Amino acid sequence: MKEISALLPPVLQHDFIARLDGKKLLIGRRDRFPFEKTYFTSSCAEDTAAAIRNMVTQGGGPLEAALWTLVLEARLHGKDLCRIDYAIMVLSDARKTNATMRLELEGLRSRLSSLPEDCFADEVEELVRSRLDDYDRKYLSMGQQGSRLIREGDGILTTCFPEHSFFLSLALARAEGRSFTVFAPETRPYLQGARLTAPSLASMGYSHFLITDNMCAFFMREKRISIYMTACDKATRTGWVVNKTGTLANAICARYFSIPYYAFALAYDERYGTLENLDVEWRDSAEVSSIRGVMTTSPEVKTLYPAFDIIAPELVSGIIMPEEEKQ
Amino acid sequence: MKEISALLPPVLQHDFIARLDGKKLLIGRRDRFPFEKTYFTSSCAEDTAAAIRNMVTQGGGPLEAALWTLVLEARLHGKDLCRIDYAIMVLSDARKTNATMRLELEGLRSRLSSLPEDCFADEVEELVRSRLDDYDRKYLSMGQQGSRLIREGDGILTTCFPEHSFFLSLALARAEGRSFTVFAPETRPYLQGARLTAPSLASMGYSHFLITDNMCAFFMREKRISIYMTACDKATRTGWVVNKTGTLANAICARYFSIPYYAFALAYDERYGTLENLDVEWRDSAEVSSIRGVMTTSPEVKTLYPAFDIIAPELVSGIIMPEEEKQ
Repeated sequence: MKEISALLPPVLQHDFIARLDGKKLLIGRRDRFPFEKTYFTSSCAEDTAAAIRNMVTQGGGPLEAALWTLVLEARLHGKDLCRIDYAIMVLSDARKTNATMRLELEGLRSRLSSLPEDCFADEVEELVRSRLDDYDRKYLSMGQQGSRLIREGDGILTTCFPEHSFFLSLALARAEGRSFTVFAPETRPYLQGARLTAPSLASMGYSHFLITDNMCAFFMREKRISIYMTACDKATRTGWVVNKTGTLANAICARYFSIPYYAFALAYDERYGTLENLDVEWRDSAEVSSIRGVMTTSPEVKTLYPAFDIIAPELVSGIIMPEEEKQ
Repeated sequence: MKEISALLPPVLQHDFIARLDGKKLLIGRRDRFPFEKTYFTSSCAEDTAAAIRNMVTQGGGPLEAALWTLVLEARLHGKDLCRIDYAIMVLSDARKTNATMRLELEGLRSRLSSLPEDCFADEVEELVRSRLDDYDRKYLSMGQQGSRLIREGDGILTTCFPEHSFFLSLALARAEGRSFTVFAPETRPYLQGARLTAPSLASMGYSHFLITDNMCAFFMREKRISIYMTACDKATRTGWVVNKTGTLANAICARYFSIPYYAFALAYDERYGTLENLDVEWRDSAEVSSIRGVMTTSPEVKTLYPAFDIIAPELVSGIIMPEEEKQ
């Protein structure tokens, strides 16, 4: 879908996220953005899996990179379904918390057996393009809903990198003539807010401020933030949400200041009724004691890095979902 | 007061905070701690003022450095009260939000006129030592009260660098046989938590974790944090508190999870009934887009840096104050 491309910042362009170049897959390096605009070159599923594990791409990036990797595998090996199954396994294992990616890969796999051998790679590519178009339609549907929640003069807080649905919400609200300011917390330790969100806001010409993660309540109290919107990694039909660490504190403070909190989700995760006792992913705690390779404390200090927050339904004003998923 | 020295980490030792060496004042460089343990050398009030302005020392450090600077000025110029008045002016101006320092300098000044000329510097030194002893007694009183709030097995959250009263609370609770774990948020952008608090906890052998500022609510939800304690820059008799940005979000989250929040204060600021509309200090917003000189975002991104939070009485369980101030 070309139509949404103009509404999205460079990091979210399909061409940057992942694109095939003959028998190579180029994956935009979100881990080095905005300091470098470079690509990781993948020659096989193992390469892509390593890139996902090492955070070369993150958020919605792994889904696209993984789908294109199946096309790459088809180009390299033809209709070798064992190889495809193996690829799906290593890709899914590379980011176990990404249920969307796993389900998408398995869904695609179920349609491969019936494809002809002679133009297998082209047929897989066609399927992948169609799936990505489908995602774009879903993002647009969420963006339309999100834009209607943005009022003239709003201060919009987000967390981490809120991806397509959020940026489409902004673009459509602006297209309708409304002005707003986005507050992007830097999202320590990995700095997705500073590295991806804030430069994306700047490149699209939106009024914005990068702040540190501990400043959100300050601006809520000052009435400069009037709505809180994030992507999320998991949402349940019962209203639970999982998103990057920091979301819980912001959701609690938003409730305290009577500011609504909305999370964008592609679909409910139907495996869960509650997330009350969900085990979240813990990442390398060494990242807490350094920033971009520079130490921030002394070596004997102990650190912890829980990567996700669990947010209870009472703190969530609404989950924004593609119209077709709302049944 | 030698007795509290053994209970305090290196950063809080009088010798490191500020000490005279002939006609020089050595000020421990908190801005470079823990990466360097070095001193800034001051030769006059203007030097000390520059050191305070440039955050060479911060928190409770400027008070001690400023008092010793008056002794230094007396050693250099004898009983020159014009010079002393000028020194007090430039020192007070160097950190206008530090009301304690200004009041302390003015209080000392009122006692200088009657001092003899021939041993003026020695007499000023005697006065300063007596004032610092008085502060140590106040810190110890607050530490005794703080330690009684720490129960066996507590998870103690703090913010920024909570100074003497907090570390004395920990020392006395440990001396009474109670074990606990301290969670120190790094306190972006200036990293007082990562650079001062966490290394101090480690050097004293306390169980501790350095976390990023957005993780506090996560550990509250996990019931690993059971009490929140901070220093504060201002407190009113009506229960308002001003402290480093990030304190408000933690206080709101603490209330949400029914965790008590206590602030240490040397005295009430009697000039204020409410702090509802207080103007807080804004610092150089360029600090938000870098960490220890390393850029965290792209140059076109706009940033903001409000340095303090205002916390309403309903979020404060108690203000811990020297016994003698409680009237």
